[in-house]
Amino acid sequence: MTGYANARRIEAMIEGLDLCNATPGQGTTRLTYSPEYRAAADFTIAQMREAGLSVHEDAVGNIFGRIEGRQPDLAPILVGSHLDSVPHGGRFDGPAGVVAAIETAFLFRELGLRPDRPIEVAALIEEEGTRFGGGLFGSRLLTGQLDPATLADLRDDNGVSAAQAMAAYGLDPAQAGQAARAPGSVHAFLELHIEQGPVLEAEGRDIAIVDRIVGLAQLRVTVRGRAGHAGTTPMDQRRDALTGAVAILSQLPDLARQTGRDAVLTVGRMEVLPGGANVIPDLVTFTVDLRAPAEEDVLRLIQMVEGTVAHAQGNGLTCAVERQLYAAPTPLSGQIGAALSAQADALGVSHRVMVSGAGHDAMIMAEFAPTGLIFVPSKGGVSHAPEEWTDYAQIARGTDVIFATIRQMSGATPG
Amino acid sequence: MTGYANARRIEAMIEGLDLCNATPGQGTTRLTYSPEYRAAADFTIAQMREAGLSVHEDAVGNIFGRIEGRQPDLAPILVGSHLDSVPHGGRFDGPAGVVAAIETAFLFRELGLRPDRPIEVAALIEEEGTRFGGGLFGSRLLTGQLDPATLADLRDDNGVSAAQAMAAYGLDPAQAGQAARAPGSVHAFLELHIEQGPVLEAEGRDIAIVDRIVGLAQLRVTVRGRAGHAGTTPMDQRRDALTGAVAILSQLPDLARQTGRDAVLTVGRMEVLPGGANVIPDLVTFTVDLRAPAEEDVLRLIQMVEGTVAHAQGNGLTCAVERQLYAAPTPLSGQIGAALSAQADALGVSHRVMVSGAGHDAMIMAEFAPTGLIFVPSKGGVSHAPEEWTDYAQIARGTDVIFATIRQMSGATPG
Repeated sequence: MTGYANARRIEAMIEGLDLCNATPGQGTTRLTYSPEYRAAADFTIAQMREAGLSVHEDAVGNIFGRIEGRQPDLAPILVGSHLDSVPHGGRFDGPAGVVAAIETAFLFRELGLRPDRPIEVAALIEEEGTRFGGGLFGSRLLTGQLDPATLADLRDDNGVSAAQAMAAYGLDPAQAGQAARAPGSVHAFLELHIEQGPVLEAEGRDIAIVDRIVGLAQLRVTVRGRAGHAGTTPMDQRRDALTGAVAILSQLPDLARQTGRDAVLTVGRMEVLPGGANVIPDLVTFTVDLRAPAEEDVLRLIQMVEGTVAHAQGNGLTCAVERQLYAAPTPLSGQIGAALSAQADALGVSHRVMVSGAGHDAMIMAEFAPTGLIFVPSKGGVSHAPEEWTDYAQIARGTDVIFATIRQMSGATPG
Repeated sequence: MTGYANARRIEAMIEGLDLCNATPGQGTTRLTYSPEYRAAADFTIAQMREAGLSVHEDAVGNIFGRIEGRQPDLAPILVGSHLDSVPHGGRFDGPAGVVAAIETAFLFRELGLRPDRPIEVAALIEEEGTRFGGGLFGSRLLTGQLDPATLADLRDDNGVSAAQAMAAYGLDPAQAGQAARAPGSVHAFLELHIEQGPVLEAEGRDIAIVDRIVGLAQLRVTVRGRAGHAGTTPMDQRRDALTGAVAILSQLPDLARQTGRDAVLTVGRMEVLPGGANVIPDLVTFTVDLRAPAEEDVLRLIQMVEGTVAHAQGNGLTCAVERQLYAAPTPLSGQIGAALSAQADALGVSHRVMVSGAGHDAMIMAEFAPTGLIFVPSKGGVSHAPEEWTDYAQIARGTDVIFATIRQMSGATPG
């Protein structure tokens, strides 16, 4: 097997992006519109220009680098991923796909290829939802699935709204609507992403071709009680919001287990207020992230969580669940999947079909344009952690498949 | 009953202190060494000077206002309480006792009283332990029970050490040891505090004379697991630190109930990291505050919590308990209690004896000098909450008892 992609250039780009990090030495933290994000965006723009792309930053901070087509009016093929990270995450989640797309552009230039159909390399914002909740902002704004007016309401932990953060970043929130593209204006979307699970490594395979993304929901649970002094309030006269929250939390993992082995449920974020060691908590909030391959399982899990929360109501506690995000299981394009598979075979890249347990920008894009997604292996299946790792040669193999597929789809020929 | 203390002046002082608040409209938040704390300290100093006191701020920020005695070499009587608050707490917890002590000084001046023995009005720092954990810093440093060297190690939520905060406040942490007073150098300590419980109001009594403070311990529990992606890590392959913490938390309230109706246990502070909605938590920390009137119950409760945490170890989780604070049940001075009781009778102030469920500076001072503590009623028993309330006339009645007792103990006479 001889490939095209340059693993050392991929390494240099991923390591360059990883310098744009708010928590060096403690994993990668790059929140959308932060100073680190700006640095990563500038680095991305510079690499895109180096690869010969015409670069455009859209009204919400998504970056696109274009290879013009012989027929410039054809709807472009988009290829890319996101630049933001979870707190203290890894360097590959997002950047691997952005860098694979930029490397594809380098290969077009080095091989003197010119496409019939334009190609746009994409670096998208706020996929993780770490800063403003919800996530997938870049693709949701691009496809018109997120109302830009809500940017004024969504706030980060410091009370800064997404609109305020955009303004501080140098964008005009009033123009955010301009990021939306017209239906039919994108020919296809391709994304390379790390697996974030253990299967490819365990099976010794190069890539997975994703045929479907699990359905997922994010809920926000609130439990309100009454604050009071830890020393002078008898146990039987308390309205302890944390005790109520724990009664809910202790039941949640079993709900996922009852639903079946492919369903997962995670409470990743939790706040206990007012937060004094000697004060009975009066407000607890936490997120519930739940996923399953079958839509009926997702809906049933949501109902079970809502039922559990409703059941905890009483004894002076008020409980509520808010649905913050819902995405049905998403089938990806069978045609693009077949093209990826054929190119992988031609390249000698071993592959399998997989359901993705993680949401990705591809999930949003799939409702807007035919979409393909491939995974490269994650060492130990670890992701969203500093130990997240994929060998650069593995990313290069995945990039070869992306490159070859786009070359074919875009009708590229020398000259 | 005709009293001495001026309820309107007490009101003005308490309301003046409450303007020094980081969360106006959402309860009182005044963390030690914060800008709000500085403002409260300056206000306190100004009121002390207005009352004719010679003011001294010690090496850690405790404030003392002195009425010189005819015999200035006699060990002084200290009277006062603390200025710091819990987050989003009330305006009375701490300030009521500081203001009662300043009002006592106003009464000495207005009645032309001069004591044989010096009197010092005290406004102490960091009783609640909200900022740096542990609490009772003012009295522990004053009595030499806290090693000033530890100030470099104790950190607030932003990673600022107590020593750094002192320096920013204008104090020299290297001099903190100078706040310690010599054994025998304090004749007695008197404190007025709000009850923070419902008993006085329910019984329609003016004050409680506290004969004993419950024993209390503060523990810090840490559960470590492994971070991972919420969507791609099967339920049975997780090392979810929050799931482990919940297993512990769900058992804790029952430990207190098993111990008996006067034992209480509170988890007031909890942090879940890394804190992304789609990231499995790898680190959960929480505090456990436990109290009981009998020392054997406190010790048994500590052991039960430690046992519960040890039992949660395993399944890839590492659990630990750290003892951050331990205070045995503390008897207060019977002699001062009798003096307070006699003065209350003479003033027509109704009273009862009570065990305090809350720790107070008086608890620390009692090991250093004969100590007396009285409670004034708390409306609805509510404290550490914005709704905390005591009528100013009720504080005035308590202040009368403090004033009359100090007048007698200090040998004060006109002129």
